[in-house]
Amino acid sequence: MAEVHPEDYLPFAEELATRAGEVVRRYFRRPFTVHEKGDLSPVTIADREVETTLRAAIRNAYPDHGVIGEEFSPTQSDAEWVWVIDPIDGTKSFLIGRPIFGTLIALLHRGQPVMGIIDQPIIGERWLGMSGIPTSFNFSPVHTRLCPDLKLATLCTTSPNLFSGKDTEAFERLRKSVKYTVYGGDCYSYGLLASGHVDIVLESDLKAHDFCALAPIVMGAGGLITDWRGNPLTLESAGHVLACGDRRTHAAALELLNR
Amino acid sequence: MAEVHPEDYLPFAEELATRAGEVVRRYFRRPFTVHEKGDLSPVTIADREVETTLRAAIRNAYPDHGVIGEEFSPTQSDAEWVWVIDPIDGTKSFLIGRPIFGTLIALLHRGQPVMGIIDQPIIGERWLGMSGIPTSFNFSPVHTRLCPDLKLATLCTTSPNLFSGKDTEAFERLRKSVKYTVYGGDCYSYGLLASGHVDIVLESDLKAHDFCALAPIVMGAGGLITDWRGNPLTLESAGHVLACGDRRTHAAALELLNR
Repeated sequence: MAEVHPEDYLPFAEELATRAGEVVRRYFRRPFTVHEKGDLSPVTIADREVETTLRAAIRNAYPDHGVIGEEFSPTQSDAEWVWVIDPIDGTKSFLIGRPIFGTLIALLHRGQPVMGIIDQPIIGERWLGMSGIPTSFNFSPVHTRLCPDLKLATLCTTSPNLFSGKDTEAFERLRKSVKYTVYGGDCYSYGLLASGHVDIVLESDLKAHDFCALAPIVMGAGGLITDWRGNPLTLESAGHVLACGDRRTHAAALELLNR
Repeated sequence: MAEVHPEDYLPFAEELATRAGEVVRRYFRRPFTVHEKGDLSPVTIADREVETTLRAAIRNAYPDHGVIGEEFSPTQSDAEWVWVIDPIDGTKSFLIGRPIFGTLIALLHRGQPVMGIIDQPIIGERWLGMSGIPTSFNFSPVHTRLCPDLKLATLCTTSPNLFSGKDTEAFERLRKSVKYTVYGGDCYSYGLLASGHVDIVLESDLKAHDFCALAPIVMGAGGLITDWRGNPLTLESAGHVLACGDRRTHAAALELLNR
């Protein structure tokens, strides 16, 4: 197999994130009426417009690359290089005008995420992860922090209501074992974990477009991100995600989740 | 009683918020080690430094005014004019480097909140409410949005774990009756409600320094903020807060909470 050079696509990936931000900013906090049905919400409109824009840019620059997105059907998803896009991850935060959502852009090589971007276009923050180089936040390298003991850890999850059945029990076991639990972060929590401000992010029910970009960012910052069984995340993962800044925390959390 | 002119204190209140932000920015995302005990966390250090700074400024400018803060004992809390300060509302968000916390500054006249500020010093956002004038966001007037039906409403609360016993049941009744529930907002949620992006904020266990600044902001934007019985918030309130952008939503939520 020829050597893989994801860095060849880095300027283009950054360009995609910048273009997404231009669209997103036009819809952020745009007033809209609360009504029963009918028109699309601004988040749906923005979601689709971002994805359409990015798909066109990819088709134009790399017609042989595949694209998997949130809003439209996959194209050439068996290609050597596949882009995975979530135009707005954290739609509820976007919807209420809270600038802690993000655009997620991942590049997969033969099914493996080799590059990931979390872009927060309102505050102007961007995490970038790529195999072989340290993760960066606004162009400065970042790393996760050490957390020697689960009971000192800060845990983030978007909403307790996203868990159900046995997953709820597993989440509650973890929640009761850590120091702080903070809700409502979406992709932004994984960025903060990469930057060393959060120790654990636990979520379920994520889709490929939600987690593919996160893996290179967390791993490249020195953290570990897997499913709830400890397996690496792939396109086929069931969407149970455990990310930790310290491998000891990951081992302890994994044990607790599967007890 | 002589006419009350809270606007006389407006430039000073804004100055307090600006000074608080200068302190807060020095501590935001400052790296710190997770450990068992010993040193104070950056949030505690920042909290105290902000409150000390603001108390000194108030004592210097208005020696006959009272001060109630989060970190130190009240001074002259029976004065005609009393400042109520929460240096960092949303300490967990601050702790994980998430810029949706805020400094809260309220001015009370004979126990009634007549001015309130929510200041977010990282993004640079400030909501200001004062009896008699419309609430502003970064100097532009804002107003709450209409929400004709509870089942169309977006509800914010900081954490479901803050409710207990019958409060949990009441919260769950409301959560299951609305369209979206979004977690993790603290004071920022009330600002977004004033700006018309959120319909309901429900919380319990707030202290006077948490809610005094919110009342003028929500009321001056056309909303309604009370305790869970529908009574106005006073220094003596038990800390159950229900804020709504539309009075119809407030009536419906109140009925549901007390069912």
